[in-house]
Amino acid sequence: MSQLEPAFDRLWESLLPIGRSATTGGYRRMAYSAAELGCREWFAAAAEERGLDVETDRNGNMWAWWTGPWGGSSGRDAFVIGSHLDSVRDGGAFDGPLGVVSSLAAVEVLQARGVVPRRPLAVAAFSDEEGARFGVACAGSRLAAGTLAPDRARALRDDDGVSMAEAMSSAGVDPSNVGSDLDRLSRIGAFVELHVEQGRALEDDDAPVGLASAIWPHGRYRFTFRGEANHAGTTAMADRRDPVQAWSRTALAADAVARARDARATFGRLEVDPNATNAVPSQVRAWLDARADSEEALSLLVEHIREAAVQHAESSGTGFDLAVESESPGVRFDETLRSSVAAALGDHAGSDVPVLPTGAGHDAGILAGAGVPTAMLFVRNPTGVSHSPAEFAERSDCLAGVRALVGTVESLAC
Amino acid sequence: MSQLEPAFDRLWESLLPIGRSATTGGYRRMAYSAAELGCREWFAAAAEERGLDVETDRNGNMWAWWTGPWGGSSGRDAFVIGSHLDSVRDGGAFDGPLGVVSSLAAVEVLQARGVVPRRPLAVAAFSDEEGARFGVACAGSRLAAGTLAPDRARALRDDDGVSMAEAMSSAGVDPSNVGSDLDRLSRIGAFVELHVEQGRALEDDDAPVGLASAIWPHGRYRFTFRGEANHAGTTAMADRRDPVQAWSRTALAADAVARARDARATFGRLEVDPNATNAVPSQVRAWLDARADSEEALSLLVEHIREAAVQHAESSGTGFDLAVESESPGVRFDETLRSSVAAALGDHAGSDVPVLPTGAGHDAGILAGAGVPTAMLFVRNPTGVSHSPAEFAERSDCLAGVRALVGTVESLAC
Repeated sequence: MSQLEPAFDRLWESLLPIGRSATTGGYRRMAYSAAELGCREWFAAAAEERGLDVETDRNGNMWAWWTGPWGGSSGRDAFVIGSHLDSVRDGGAFDGPLGVVSSLAAVEVLQARGVVPRRPLAVAAFSDEEGARFGVACAGSRLAAGTLAPDRARALRDDDGVSMAEAMSSAGVDPSNVGSDLDRLSRIGAFVELHVEQGRALEDDDAPVGLASAIWPHGRYRFTFRGEANHAGTTAMADRRDPVQAWSRTALAADAVARARDARATFGRLEVDPNATNAVPSQVRAWLDARADSEEALSLLVEHIREAAVQHAESSGTGFDLAVESESPGVRFDETLRSSVAAALGDHAGSDVPVLPTGAGHDAGILAGAGVPTAMLFVRNPTGVSHSPAEFAERSDCLAGVRALVGTVESLAC
Repeated sequence: MSQLEPAFDRLWESLLPIGRSATTGGYRRMAYSAAELGCREWFAAAAEERGLDVETDRNGNMWAWWTGPWGGSSGRDAFVIGSHLDSVRDGGAFDGPLGVVSSLAAVEVLQARGVVPRRPLAVAAFSDEEGARFGVACAGSRLAAGTLAPDRARALRDDDGVSMAEAMSSAGVDPSNVGSDLDRLSRIGAFVELHVEQGRALEDDDAPVGLASAIWPHGRYRFTFRGEANHAGTTAMADRRDPVQAWSRTALAADAVARARDARATFGRLEVDPNATNAVPSQVRAWLDARADSEEALSLLVEHIREAAVQHAESSGTGFDLAVESESPGVRFDETLRSSVAAALGDHAGSDVPVLPTGAGHDAGILAGAGVPTAMLFVRNPTGVSHSPAEFAERSDCLAGVRALVGTVESLAC
């Protein structure tokens, strides 16, 4: 009988080398890149080895079915587990892949025990969750949920000018066919996504796994400051319209406002034109990632930062505009499903497994927004570090996550 | 007889299309790029059409000799005019090329008048003046002057990881042969560089051309702030070590210090890692361009900015270090040569032609530092804008510049 530990280790170690940068030690599995296509091949091969039927849906999301697609029936109560395989640039090994690997390991363990699911059961790997290449997070699940318009998705471009449509084509996904897949989503009775925690709450609670209560509302905004390119040596300071100055003041304001409101504001991506040492820049584009515990709080947070940008642009003689790149409403996960998962973990009193909100967006949140009963399992992250090569979870905690998935699937789907 | 206006126009218009970006309207003639090689071909063809002998020296600088290399003699009193052809990324049409075009036009006009130089006379196009690709300004003249070590130059890399040695090889310049060329420089009795002004002094003085008194000392410094990459949604603001915050404060400090000291401080180039919207960055690298009217003032300016960086890095928990990429001492141009040029322009009283210092570095400054008697002619820039697609000079002022060169060469070299 297949043991849980070797089942997990074998899967984990076979995925680990794919898309890892020798320079940074981080992962560069951006959507439809060669590294991410390697992850897709890995997923298909690992699923097929376990006798699962693999399909790629119209939006590039992959599904591995235990007893054939939709269990061979027209049932509308499929039980889906999984996560995503893509990464941010120089991300960690766990964010996404831990959920996919743990799901495949859980299936392997249950198969070895001779268990057969009583509901259609699939392991899913959603496409382009991070949005690291084209700028829209959860693009695969959003397309399926109908909250990302196909025309907009196809036209998104990466830093090299490659469109998502072109990237999809080169990966064998027909871009003319992407779009809402609500019939598929409506046939899912439950989706449980396991994910490494991206904060330190479980570490503080001394718990290897936890359950999500909610996802904070989240937005991405492009701030553009337009000044005047000029010679760095000959242009008097008083004659400049330097967008770096307006942006720097805005970045400090964003940090202060988020601190004061117990929210999150991050300028993590920046493009400077022409980006030459001896030229006053003509333009700075900076992307704000903002999150807060309610939609009202998020809206106030962004408004404060926007006001700071307007003021600092005016006082430095630079033009300013703001574009909303994406906004995701907050999500409250299904309480009935969460109680069932907690019970499957042996937490009948409802007090042993911590329940926590998160500031991170997930495909689970998109599916919940589309009406799919959804739960999330978190695995402890001892440092809280994520989106970094230093992202880490103890093997014993990862195994506890697999055990939780095995218990959940056995209890709710077998 | 060849007229001055068509001679200039023909040369100017034939160079204008090379390396111009259709997107920005700016020029991208970075050293050894396809566009810059196009400029080199243009120079060789234009020189040969005028009967000049073209040679490329060991450091990639081009020389077009009127009466054969070094006038066919061992004379040590060569008279050289010229400038450079490369540009910053999205620079203007005038910075560099105006001096080369004006020099070739002046030769054509003098040839048409039947004038023959009494000294060896060359038009020079120095290589990689802007340093926009490899980060070291005036690389061609610095190599010749022995102030840029060949090993360091060969190892410099552009943003794509291509070394200067590789770029040189692909352009037919043998990188193993670069280095000090002081014998060549010692045979130059005078170098006169015509250049578009990069400030507004001549506009304020209502003068089409002026002469340079001095170049300010100038340094380039790489500021590196190292924080901790992390998830933008889940990492509490208080738990972050965000290098963007330390850098933003430093950029504001640099601006304030330069204003207070009537100096120049510019952070025009920035690299953020991993540069993803949803990741707190692990690292920010920012390049400071600093200039002041004395070496002591420059040193104090940079020290103040460094102290601000150290303080802001400490208070935000980020690591910091500073690397000097280049430092150029101030230059005072040769007063005897300047008086001769002024006299050749008919300014015997020494008051009609404005004389001004500049914050911009030039190959003329490098040659002056190597002991070559050197002068600079500036052509009025009505807006002062430079290193930008909007850089501009009136045609009538450009023609005044050619006339000034014709007078200078006729008076001092023919």
